[in-house]
Amino acid sequence: MTTKAHAVSAERLTNFTTRVFRKLGVGEEDAQITADMLVKTDLKGIDSHGVARLKAYVEGIKEGLINPKPETKLFSQAPATAIMDGDKGLGFVVGYRSMMEAMRRAEAVGAGFVTVRNSTHFGAGSNYSIMALSRNLIGISMTTGGIRMVVPGSTGGGGGINVMSVAVPTSQEAPFVLDIATTVAAVGKTEIALRKGVNIPEGWVVDKENKPIVDPSKALAEGAWLPLGGTPQLGSYKGFGLSVVVDILSSVLSGSIPCPEFPNEPNSRLKGNHFLGALNINGFMPVDEFKTAMDKMIEVYRALPKAEGIDRIYLAGELEQKTEQERRNKGIPLDPVIINTLQEIAKELKIPYAL
Amino acid sequence: MTTKAHAVSAERLTNFTTRVFRKLGVGEEDAQITADMLVKTDLKGIDSHGVARLKAYVEGIKEGLINPKPETKLFSQAPATAIMDGDKGLGFVVGYRSMMEAMRRAEAVGAGFVTVRNSTHFGAGSNYSIMALSRNLIGISMTTGGIRMVVPGSTGGGGGINVMSVAVPTSQEAPFVLDIATTVAAVGKTEIALRKGVNIPEGWVVDKENKPIVDPSKALAEGAWLPLGGTPQLGSYKGFGLSVVVDILSSVLSGSIPCPEFPNEPNSRLKGNHFLGALNINGFMPVDEFKTAMDKMIEVYRALPKAEGIDRIYLAGELEQKTEQERRNKGIPLDPVIINTLQEIAKELKIPYAL
Repeated sequence: MTTKAHAVSAERLTNFTTRVFRKLGVGEEDAQITADMLVKTDLKGIDSHGVARLKAYVEGIKEGLINPKPETKLFSQAPATAIMDGDKGLGFVVGYRSMMEAMRRAEAVGAGFVTVRNSTHFGAGSNYSIMALSRNLIGISMTTGGIRMVVPGSTGGGGGINVMSVAVPTSQEAPFVLDIATTVAAVGKTEIALRKGVNIPEGWVVDKENKPIVDPSKALAEGAWLPLGGTPQLGSYKGFGLSVVVDILSSVLSGSIPCPEFPNEPNSRLKGNHFLGALNINGFMPVDEFKTAMDKMIEVYRALPKAEGIDRIYLAGELEQKTEQERRNKGIPLDPVIINTLQEIAKELKIPYAL
Repeated sequence: MTTKAHAVSAERLTNFTTRVFRKLGVGEEDAQITADMLVKTDLKGIDSHGVARLKAYVEGIKEGLINPKPETKLFSQAPATAIMDGDKGLGFVVGYRSMMEAMRRAEAVGAGFVTVRNSTHFGAGSNYSIMALSRNLIGISMTTGGIRMVVPGSTGGGGGINVMSVAVPTSQEAPFVLDIATTVAAVGKTEIALRKGVNIPEGWVVDKENKPIVDPSKALAEGAWLPLGGTPQLGSYKGFGLSVVVDILSSVLSGSIPCPEFPNEPNSRLKGNHFLGALNINGFMPVDEFKTAMDKMIEVYRALPKAEGIDRIYLAGELEQKTEQERRNKGIPLDPVIINTLQEIAKELKIPYAL
């Protein structure tokens, strides 16, 4: 491989990604939404969930696993709650529409929740929770992920590598944005290790005998991901329990099938159910007061005594905001493997690669 | 110590506990609610959070840290949301009233959330989430806990050992009831190890240099609890992040001060803020359909391939339901240390000890 790593501007990468989706039959607004989310994920340094995965979505649309023009449907029985049927649309589009609906309801009655079936992989969970920030809401986003989590007491990856994200607005400080897989580590981190040619730490992935795997390519080929906590003694039933909570709210509550029932076949690899929610801060207390109190809380955590060698205590979201500022100025550094993939996509779809 | 461990009936233990609270000036209904919750916690085998902690509440009332007759106040700006001021009441009473209010709102508009300030330690988080089960709601309960969690990058216990619980109704299966501290292990598990005279596993508690402590008495005297995940490489920022989510929803959103600001003094030891919520299943889909799907989901998880030496895969809540059935028949086995404490309380308050 002769391609060199280099940095590309967010704007160009967004334009390119939008063209890719347009070419595949995705509508103008939907292509824009999806490209924005993918590139913002890269801007924040969540390199596992940005354009690195563009090829998977391209192939999903071409194979008919993702519907480029979904007719999503909403079913609601109460002012605060609804089910969305995603019509196999791009998860980004379905997630966006569902979160808009949850927020509308939170603004009307104080809280809004939309559970989503028949959707597909929607990228980073925080794409949707952060939509709440500019509207002074607390955003909640959950999704089922790949069926590769070890269920405690079991072998192999029978549970979902599910995700939960919570975003909370602040005044001057970086917004609080938690975005976590319910496993020790997300699959994307192993993909990054593979691209970098380094081993993964013991404690992330195991084989079918529950023995550790540290080779990333072996992990991706045949491994199963341990739930957060790692071992029963260190609380793996907690990570598993959180994964099941996501599964209940996203799959059972939307009338879909839960993670361990997802068919284990290539055609189901992009399948996903979600759960999006918003709480209206104004329904509890004045927003300005709340945001000032958030800033103060962050300062207090940051002022705790520091361990040796530590310069700063970070709360969720702060590092991502810092990375975003840097990458907006200096561009997004793309790995050669990713660049090659993007060039292949451009060639295949006959669109200019001008990054 | 000559007292022997023995089993007591739940009914007698509830009556005794009710009398204790009545004698301390707690109203009839409130004493009953509190005793019921404490004994149900013991019935389920959560021995760390039942009558083992009765003395702490007795002392709290006697020292004026807990108000036996709280005049709780509710402030609401939206149909789905409210703030409760607990007036320093027993956390059990304040938590109960807040959850009733959250459920009333969920039944009206689909979702209900009450954030609670000025309350005190409310026992096991699942006391409140499970109130939702018989009403066909999904129950959510969170609380701040002792300020003894290691914040990643810091030393000592500057963060909150916060708790989250989610309860979901089923049809024939045991209800799904997750009830977890956001640390690797709850403090109560170390208290149990101390009573049993055994060491705690490495990975639960560390000293001020972040070195492991395995001696439970040293842990309780000077230790700090690691967040779920344990180390940064194995996801401790996830446990920390979940702890902060609980803190935001319970403390910041209720207009109280967050965990790391709780004054570090004996008089603040029972202080707590909570967050109670409910989702109305009927607001999404027909309840019967949902409960049948929950049963099926549990069966599917249970049918996953089992690891060597494992007879059964358990979902959250199942073991506790089994223990409750056993203990309702055979009584609750009380540790000699606990029996001595209950006898002391009886003597001090001049009520008969007849267990």
